[in-house]
Amino acid sequence: MDQILALIQPEMQRFEQRLDECLHSDVLTVHEVARYMATLKGKRLRPALVLLCARATGLWRDDLVGTVVDAGVGVEMVHATTLIHDDVVDDAPTRRGMESVNARWANQIAVLMGDFLLARALCMLVSLGNQDALMTVARATERLSQGEIHELQIGRQADASEASYFAMVSDKTASLIAASAKIGPLLVGAPVEVVEAMARYGESLGLAFQIADDVLDFTGDPAALGKPVGHDLREGKFTLPLIKALSSAPVAQRDGVMDLLRATGKSETDWSSIVAFVYEHKGLEAAGDTAREYARRAESCLEVLAPSPYRDALHTTVRLVVERDS
Amino acid sequence: MDQILALIQPEMQRFEQRLDECLHSDVLTVHEVARYMATLKGKRLRPALVLLCARATGLWRDDLVGTVVDAGVGVEMVHATTLIHDDVVDDAPTRRGMESVNARWANQIAVLMGDFLLARALCMLVSLGNQDALMTVARATERLSQGEIHELQIGRQADASEASYFAMVSDKTASLIAASAKIGPLLVGAPVEVVEAMARYGESLGLAFQIADDVLDFTGDPAALGKPVGHDLREGKFTLPLIKALSSAPVAQRDGVMDLLRATGKSETDWSSIVAFVYEHKGLEAAGDTAREYARRAESCLEVLAPSPYRDALHTTVRLVVERDS
Repeated sequence: MDQILALIQPEMQRFEQRLDECLHSDVLTVHEVARYMATLKGKRLRPALVLLCARATGLWRDDLVGTVVDAGVGVEMVHATTLIHDDVVDDAPTRRGMESVNARWANQIAVLMGDFLLARALCMLVSLGNQDALMTVARATERLSQGEIHELQIGRQADASEASYFAMVSDKTASLIAASAKIGPLLVGAPVEVVEAMARYGESLGLAFQIADDVLDFTGDPAALGKPVGHDLREGKFTLPLIKALSSAPVAQRDGVMDLLRATGKSETDWSSIVAFVYEHKGLEAAGDTAREYARRAESCLEVLAPSPYRDALHTTVRLVVERDS
Repeated sequence: MDQILALIQPEMQRFEQRLDECLHSDVLTVHEVARYMATLKGKRLRPALVLLCARATGLWRDDLVGTVVDAGVGVEMVHATTLIHDDVVDDAPTRRGMESVNARWANQIAVLMGDFLLARALCMLVSLGNQDALMTVARATERLSQGEIHELQIGRQADASEASYFAMVSDKTASLIAASAKIGPLLVGAPVEVVEAMARYGESLGLAFQIADDVLDFTGDPAALGKPVGHDLREGKFTLPLIKALSSAPVAQRDGVMDLLRATGKSETDWSSIVAFVYEHKGLEAAGDTAREYARRAESCLEVLAPSPYRDALHTTVRLVVERDS
């Protein structure tokens, strides 16, 4: 990732500076929380995609840098909003190894700060003056919340179908990644087939990203992930490895595990037996295969682009997303 | 209010229909919560303002009705978002005499539904294709959350200054009402002086509205308001009657009440003595005078308009806001 970021280093530096400026508020509490959040720096995947996809079109012009960087700030702020609200929803005490906003300031502030950042992100995107780019991010934001509610519904209904899973993940995770990949090309005036190919690249990358995340919930290093093994499982989430194992297991075993999943007050032994079931019925291999399939689809979308270091970086991003260990 | 709504009855009917359409989602839980919210019908002050202000310009054209109605749907959805999140923030069990979304579906759903509705409202406004109108509402949305955080900060810091109060209320309440009054004229292509006068009308109306609300917290009928007398006071809010009483009381008495306000675990006697203090030092009269002053300012902004039943309705709206009892 560092090598990729080095390619767009001046733009990413400008991104950090603009993000910082955009977090200003005259209301002290708003300002303090925004400052604190700025220290919880993530991977910057979304703004990096905005920049790389814009540059990979070959249509980059230096006078567009401000617009494209600001678009990156907009999507990163939308992403930050969802993390703050997710931590409220999950009652999470930490985020990226530091206290979460809800833990440090209470839920009230976390809910309202999320709203503030979302509105500010959208103001930022409105000021770019590109209706298509704005609509792309606004629709992704809408789908994102819809996907999160869908995820809660799937858990509550113990709905283990792949169809619901993919509809949910497309909304929850892929929509904003697809929007990030699409708006850079849109803003530099790329032809519609390039814009659409980049949107499909982002969609497949986003699905691969989420499935890799699902696999890491079983196999990841808790220290690197910042959450215990089986965290999503215990939250009642129907992740792909579980869904795959359920669909390949014999009916009697499947029904037994479904009953266990629906039961309240599960013991440690119950959890271990669910994890063993996922391993036994090759849920992790099947999910890994699916992630690699989406990775291939993402890479094939890059064929519309002329060769360049930026296109190579978009290839590498796919590899990193699928092979990451945290 | 019924008389005012009768003036724009066909448009308000179309508004209800469009709002209904806009609450659709393929995700069952999203759809159910949205349906439920549609039954919690409020006063429709903001969409009525959008329509009345558009018509009062004299520039109304029938082919604009769809655009102006959709703008009303956008602001009403932004308003609904803030109510859902406020109920999470205040842990409120009811809203308009029915169970609140958080009480009925849990905080998780309420937080995410608020986000969904906000994003959808902004999509709606993006699709109008008017950058100024969109920016007006997006900025108001940003100020709204900022104002709510400011209100919590004022309570925590026991900051009884009128300056903070007015900055906070301008953000929290007046910004979206001002935006509602401004975007109708914007969308029908009114001249800038009319657009600005309507924005100022909305700002003053919003301040008068909030102050009237503050007074009702002491004098209102709990059944009509749907909340007990002194509810805001007990939530630690520094409303204008309290601030006015604090600034006119002798220093020793003021300090005594400030100590009491800062103390934790107040008894019923303590609350009663704070209420008695507000009455004794004419906080309610002073706040009422301020509300009437803003009402006069709002009315004077209407002078830019030619006489019409719509302008009369905007006058009547001011009266209703200041003289309302719930």
